[in-house]
Amino acid sequence: MGEFELIARHFTRASRSARPAVALGVGDDCALLQPAPGQQLAISTDMLVEGRHFLSTVAPERLGHKALAVNLSDLAACGAEPLGCTLALALPRADESFVAPFARGLFALADAHGIELVGGDTTAGPLNICITVFGQVPVGQALLRSGARPGDELWVSGRTLGDARLALEVFRGTQALPGADFETVRRAMETPQPRVALGLALRGVASSAIDISDGLLGDLGHVLRRSGVGAVVQVDALPRSAVLAAQPLALQHECLLAGGDDYELLFTAPAVLHAAVLAAGERAGTAVTCCGHIEAAPGLRVVDASGAAVATPWRSFDHFQ
Amino acid sequence: MGEFELIARHFTRASRSARPAVALGVGDDCALLQPAPGQQLAISTDMLVEGRHFLSTVAPERLGHKALAVNLSDLAACGAEPLGCTLALALPRADESFVAPFARGLFALADAHGIELVGGDTTAGPLNICITVFGQVPVGQALLRSGARPGDELWVSGRTLGDARLALEVFRGTQALPGADFETVRRAMETPQPRVALGLALRGVASSAIDISDGLLGDLGHVLRRSGVGAVVQVDALPRSAVLAAQPLALQHECLLAGGDDYELLFTAPAVLHAAVLAAGERAGTAVTCCGHIEAAPGLRVVDASGAAVATPWRSFDHFQ
Repeated sequence: MGEFELIARHFTRASRSARPAVALGVGDDCALLQPAPGQQLAISTDMLVEGRHFLSTVAPERLGHKALAVNLSDLAACGAEPLGCTLALALPRADESFVAPFARGLFALADAHGIELVGGDTTAGPLNICITVFGQVPVGQALLRSGARPGDELWVSGRTLGDARLALEVFRGTQALPGADFETVRRAMETPQPRVALGLALRGVASSAIDISDGLLGDLGHVLRRSGVGAVVQVDALPRSAVLAAQPLALQHECLLAGGDDYELLFTAPAVLHAAVLAAGERAGTAVTCCGHIEAAPGLRVVDASGAAVATPWRSFDHFQ
Repeated sequence: MGEFELIARHFTRASRSARPAVALGVGDDCALLQPAPGQQLAISTDMLVEGRHFLSTVAPERLGHKALAVNLSDLAACGAEPLGCTLALALPRADESFVAPFARGLFALADAHGIELVGGDTTAGPLNICITVFGQVPVGQALLRSGARPGDELWVSGRTLGDARLALEVFRGTQALPGADFETVRRAMETPQPRVALGLALRGVASSAIDISDGLLGDLGHVLRRSGVGAVVQVDALPRSAVLAAQPLALQHECLLAGGDDYELLFTAPAVLHAAVLAAGERAGTAVTCCGHIEAAPGLRVVDASGAAVATPWRSFDHFQ
C-alpha cells in the first residue's frame, strides 16, 4: 500500500449522516446517489490552487473548511439541500501533518451540513484541491441567475461583506491592521460560512440568486446578463464589519464592491415579498440586507445614500459593461 | 474578461446531446440533473497530473480524450449509462494552442457517448485536469466490486491488455520497439476506449466488475477483498496484441498483470451465464475473454496453461496479500 493510499484513508470513514440519498459511498468504481422523488440533483465543481484561491500561510484545517465551503456556497445559491461531495486531491508529498488537519476541517463542515464524502482521488502533484458537490432541489424550485425582474429588490446576506478582501490586502502588504482586527478579517477570508440554510429558506421567495465569489459587482453582472435587466446598488446600505467601516471610504468601496471571496448570497425578490425575505433570514439565522433594486434598463449603477453616482473603476464592473 | 474566461468558453457550447436528464447545463451556480424514474445517479471523479497520469509528450487532443475516457471507464465498470460531466482545469498559461485541441479531443469522446459537459472551473496553476462524471443505472442493477462468488468465471474485455504499459516502458527507455509497433502501443496508452457499451450489456449478467486502471492483479485484488473470495488467473489466456506477444514472456506477464492504464473491464459472471457473457460482448462489439475463475478460499493464484503457478513479484499483487 502506497503512502498516498494511506493518506486517502484519512478521507474514508464510516458514514455518519446516513442520508438515504447516498445509496453507495466510497469504495467502488462509482458512488450511487438517489435524489428523493420529485427532486433534481444540483451539481457544482470548484478547483482550488495555492496562491490563487488560498495562501501558503493558511492553516490546513481552515483550508479543508474553505475548499468545501466554496462548493457548498454554490449549492446555497441554487437553494439546494446538500447531499454529498467528491474530493480529488493532488499533494506534493504524502504529508500526514497536512492531510490530517485538512480532513478534520473538511469533515467538520461536512458534518455541520450532514453531507457525505462519496468518492475521491488522491495523487502526487502540485497542491490542488478539486471538490464536486451534490445537492437536491425540488423540480422547478432552484434559484437561478436568470430570474431577476424589474422592480425586484436586491439583497445581500451576512454582516461582513468585504472583510475577506481587506485581509487579502493586508497579506499583500498594501494595508496594515492591528493584530486583533487582522485576525477578524482573516477569519472571514479563511473560513467563509456557506449560506445553505438561507438558500433553502429563499426557495419560493427569491427570484434569482448567486454567491459572491468574484466580487459583488462582477457577480451581480452575471445575474443581470442572464436576466436581461439592470440594477442600482446602494453602496452605503451594504453591510460591513466595524473593522472595514473604520477604513477610508475608497478602500471600503473596493472591498465591498469588488472584493470577492465573500461567499455571501446576492439575491433578488419581488418588493411585495420584502417581509418574506426578512422572515427567511430570520428562519435561517442569517442577516439579510436590502441594498438596491432591479431596473428594466440594462446597466449597473452604484449610488450613495444621497442618490449620487459612485465611481466604480473595477474590472469586475467593466467587463459587465 | 480575462484570458482564462476566454479559454473557459472553449468548453461552453450549445447542448448537442439533448439529454432529458440534463435539466440545466453550464452557466449557473449549479447544473441540474434528473435521472429517469427508478434510476440512481452513478458518480466518479478522477484527477490527472502530468508525469503521473500522462506524459508531457502527449498531444493535447489525445489528453482531452484520455481525461474523459478514464472517467467514463468508471461508469462502464458500474454498468451506468453516461449522462454528463464537469471539468475543472488548472493551466499554467491561458494557452489556446493547448486548450483548443484538448477541448476537441474531450468533446469528440463526449459526443461519441452522447454526454454533456454540465459545469466546470478554469484557473491558473500547474497543469491539472479533474473530471467528475455522472451516469444513471436502474436501482439495484449497478455492477459492484462486491458481487463475485465462488465458481464465477473471470473475464476481461479487449484484445490489447498490457499495451499501455509496454508503451510506458518504451518512454521510460527500458524497452525499445520499431516505430510502427511503438505507435500501436502508444495509441493504447494515450487513447483508451472506455467500455461503456459492454458495461451496459453486462447488467444482469456480470456478478462484479472493475476497470483496470492500476493493473489486472491490483484491481482484481479490490474485487476479491470486497467480495471475500479468491481467484485463479490463467495468464496464458489473457488477450494481448501481436506487438506484446512478440516480447519476452517475463515482460508480457508484467504488462498483462501489473500494467495499468488499460481501462478494460475485469468482471465475473456465474459459469452458467458463459454464453450470455459472450452475447453481451457481441452486442457491445467488444471482445471478451474468459481468463480464470473465482474460488471460495482467499488469495490470488496466477497459473499458466499447464496449470503451473507463475511467480508474480509485483507490488499490486503483494499489497493484496
